[in-house]
Amino acid sequence: MTWASIDLNADLGEGFGRWRLTDDEGLLSIVTSANVACGFHAGDASTMQRVCRLAAERSVRIGAQVSYRDLAGFGRRSMDVPPDELAAEIAYQIGALQVFARAAGSRVSYVKPHGALYNRVVHDEEQAAAVVDGVLLTGERLPLLGLPGSKLHAMAEKAGLPVITEAFADRAYTAEGTLVPRREEGAVLTDENAVVERSVSMARFGVVTSRCGRSVAVRARSLCLHGDTPGAVTLARQVRHQLETVGVRVEAFV
Amino acid sequence: MTWASIDLNADLGEGFGRWRLTDDEGLLSIVTSANVACGFHAGDASTMQRVCRLAAERSVRIGAQVSYRDLAGFGRRSMDVPPDELAAEIAYQIGALQVFARAAGSRVSYVKPHGALYNRVVHDEEQAAAVVDGVLLTGERLPLLGLPGSKLHAMAEKAGLPVITEAFADRAYTAEGTLVPRREEGAVLTDENAVVERSVSMARFGVVTSRCGRSVAVRARSLCLHGDTPGAVTLARQVRHQLETVGVRVEAFV
Amino acid sequence: MTWASIDLNADLGEGFGRWRLTDDEGLLSIVTSANVACGFHAGDASTMQRVCRLAAERSVRIGAQVSYRDLAGFGRRSMDVPPDELAAEIAYQIGALQVFARAAGSRVSYVKPHGALYNRVVHDEEQAAAVVDGVLLTGERLPLLGLPGSKLHAMAEKAGLPVITEAFADRAYTAEGTLVPRREEGAVLTDENAVVERSVSMARFGVVTSRCGRSVAVRARSLCLHGDTPGAVTLARQVRHQLETVGVRVEAFV
Amino acid sequence: MTWASIDLNADLGEGFGRWRLTDDEGLLSIVTSANVACGFHAGDASTMQRVCRLAAERSVRIGAQVSYRDLAGFGRRSMDVPPDELAAEIAYQIGALQVFARAAGSRVSYVKPHGALYNRVVHDEEQAAAVVDGVLLTGERLPLLGLPGSKLHAMAEKAGLPVITEAFADRAYTAEGTLVPRREEGAVLTDENAVVERSVSMARFGVVTSRCGRSVAVRARSLCLHGDTPGAVTLARQVRHQLETVGVRVEAFV
Repeated sequence: MTWASIDLNADLGEGFGRWRLTDDEGLLSIVTSANVACGFHAGDASTMQRVCRLAAERSVRIGAQVSYRDLAGFGRRSMDVPPDELAAEIAYQIGALQVFARAAGSRVSYVKPHGALYNRVVHDEEQAAAVVDGVLLTGERLPLLGLPGSKLHAMAEKAGLPVITEAFADRAYTAEGTLVPRREEGAVLTDENAVVERSVSMARFGVVTSRCGRSVAVRARSLCLHGDTPGAVTLARQVRHQLETVGVRVEAFV
Repeated sequence: MTWASIDLNADLGEGFGRWRLTDDEGLLSIVTSANVACGFHAGDASTMQRVCRLAAERSVRIGAQVSYRDLAGFGRRSMDVPPDELAAEIAYQIGALQVFARAAGSRVSYVKPHGALYNRVVHDEEQAAAVVDGVLLTGERLPLLGLPGSKLHAMAEKAGLPVITEAFADRAYTAEGTLVPRREEGAVLTDENAVVERSVSMARFGVVTSRCGRSVAVRARSLCLHGDTPGAVTLARQVRHQLETVGVRVEAFV
Repeated sequence: MTWASIDLNADLGEGFGRWRLTDDEGLLSIVTSANVACGFHAGDASTMQRVCRLAAERSVRIGAQVSYRDLAGFGRRSMDVPPDELAAEIAYQIGALQVFARAAGSRVSYVKPHGALYNRVVHDEEQAAAVVDGVLLTGERLPLLGLPGSKLHAMAEKAGLPVITEAFADRAYTAEGTLVPRREEGAVLTDENAVVERSVSMARFGVVTSRCGRSVAVRARSLCLHGDTPGAVTLARQVRHQLETVGVRVEAFV
Repeated sequence: MTWASIDLNADLGEGFGRWRLTDDEGLLSIVTSANVACGFHAGDASTMQRVCRLAAERSVRIGAQVSYRDLAGFGRRSMDVPPDELAAEIAYQIGALQVFARAAGSRVSYVKPHGALYNRVVHDEEQAAAVVDGVLLTGERLPLLGLPGSKLHAMAEKAGLPVITEAFADRAYTAEGTLVPRREEGAVLTDENAVVERSVSMARFGVVTSRCGRSVAVRARSLCLHGDTPGAVTLARQVRHQLETVGVRVEAFV
């Protein structure tokens, strides 16, 4: 499957109070969708406000990057949150972000789980359903950005919510088209040329080379770019430049 | 000044996680306005959701009880929060509550600062303006519930926001019509009959007897009932009963 | 196996800031070991100080009730905390409590994991080892209070730390002598006479009747009494009274 | 007044979870005293453990950098914490750090308030006394690092605790020898040569040039170097190098 266009998303606003992590200004000149942290793993109110303003000014789409409540662990520690509590916590985060998105003249357009929650709702049906329930509480049919084939997407579709598939240009894939777990060697690609080349391949042809050298289909309406490492912005810029050079339209999913 | 009707408000949902403080069910059968804690001094997401549902079922108006970010101090410790940060934190709390109010088929109808912030914006113009700025960020003209003559009300009116005055039937007043500070003896009335009698006097005649025995005018569209002490619900019920007995209509401010 | 004596332990100081949960004064007149919350699931600094003072006055032994960092979930949500982080968090909590225990003229005498961490280290060897590592960081050979047969006890013994076994008079046991999981019906006993009777049986004979009517051995040097329900203190008092009546010495483990 | 030697102190471990702020490794090769954040404004347990290890390896003295409980505001927002609560919170932080200092083969040797608390206890006698009470709770006669003439030092001396005076080479001084408030222009010096030159002048002669060009006496046993700006480590290294070049011994206060 090929796409005439691709969306680029990145995690933004992942500081807290005095701390900064992501180069929000830099990335906002590149991506078309901003996953804005909502205060549970990162993202104080002032940061949310600032990032929403910057995103709106650049016509970058705003999404709620929802997380477990875990500042100390940056949302990277899987938690057995009862479904009702999790749904309420998801709704709380989206509601808080909506204020700042609207104040900036924009709106929250989608939802993407963060960190451990992202990984968990790939396979945990109960928590996936809870995230969907949290979105439904907002009364808006917000699309869920996530992995193709995930329980999150299955539950979202069951509830009548749109889904947006994403892929990772800097992650190794198995022959089955799933991500190689981070704990395995070679799971994260650091060679910049490779990342750029895979981005183009994914965007144009919906195909990526698996770690065993096979071409595998990777359905993805959006590519996730990472913003929390040195050189991240430069690499992201290269990816976007090369996509445009080969004629891929970089634009937000509708 | 007399009112044909009076609003009764109380702080609700002031638990957090495993902890409960207020008898939410009990008070929601009495008051007409529920000041719902929004997570900064109390009020986790599940509690907010539950209280909003109960309030909506009983047609009790929902207000955002906004606070400094201070769970450990229950929002009772005055904080020098820079105005920009404070405004953003106020907006964040209102936004989060809006989700649950709407999900329950209701809406956030007003804003009331809690604890140390409540006391501070009586006289601190900068923080009062920040609270108003936070409300303005929501894009809605939400009334601010507070003390008559407070800087909060002055700043709200300057910004074109409605204000709702409130009085306290269980607090002593000075001859000037201001509250006797809590640290002074006799500041809080515990005699139930006196509290009921003062409620009626405030609601019917806009008058209360000061601690030095003088009748002073107390403009108040709403009476605040406390819900965090044993016997609070019983006393609140007596107040409402007596108001209705003497012909005062107990109803939410429009 | 029978004991000439038994220890009674209870969770104490499980409030936070404005919130109270446990009847600390009531329980401290009954138990011989106080599991004091250390700030991660409950227990602000002032509460810790107060409970340590009360415990020291009554010669009740002070233990560190360590938890995942999860105030919102009261430490009841299992978390995938990396072992190094978990060990450091355990040490942090014990260190904080040591100050208050010493200031009260006592000391931290043992460690007991709380809630989800308690349940997890029954079978999770990695987290059990992390808890033990956290205790070792303190440089003191503090005993670990927990379930007989737990990974926590296995790891503690491997590291040369003493272990203290405990049993629950208000929990149903399987024929294998393990706890019936809380989610199963009949897991928690509410009949007061039954709880008292089982306490005596456990303390005198090391035996309890399983849910299928069989006598099973329950090794336990300490009985855990619950303090967060209405009537908890009354029941605890009955248990202690009956134990003493039948000649069991109620005293802290050495 | 001149010193044969000077201590250099810096704030370290001021990250939290995923976030880093200070170049701990870089500064630990320069300073003689490390003010380690204890978890209330920054400093998770793992960071505290790591910084204590690094400090102990380099024989850098470990101090407890205690703060208001305010992660979102980085401890920079003054708070009206009741004295009893503040004392308990100070003790809690010191106790937590003691575990890691001891585990690293070192100990907590002094206490320094952070941020808004530092500024407040210059003039607020009640909070200054509370900080001292918190230190006394530890049962150790830990010196308090702070401004000469501060209420903190007055209260410490009254309680029999040692005090250590400090000065700031990158801050402007008034003709009275007090710090020019940060909000005033020119309060912070950015010229590196000036900072180095003032460090030497303070360390050798106890004298600094005030902003109006006058030589004023600045008693200081320790110089505070800032570590949270780009170039901070380079500047700190220059300061130390120049001090040693002119014959000042750089060493921790005893």
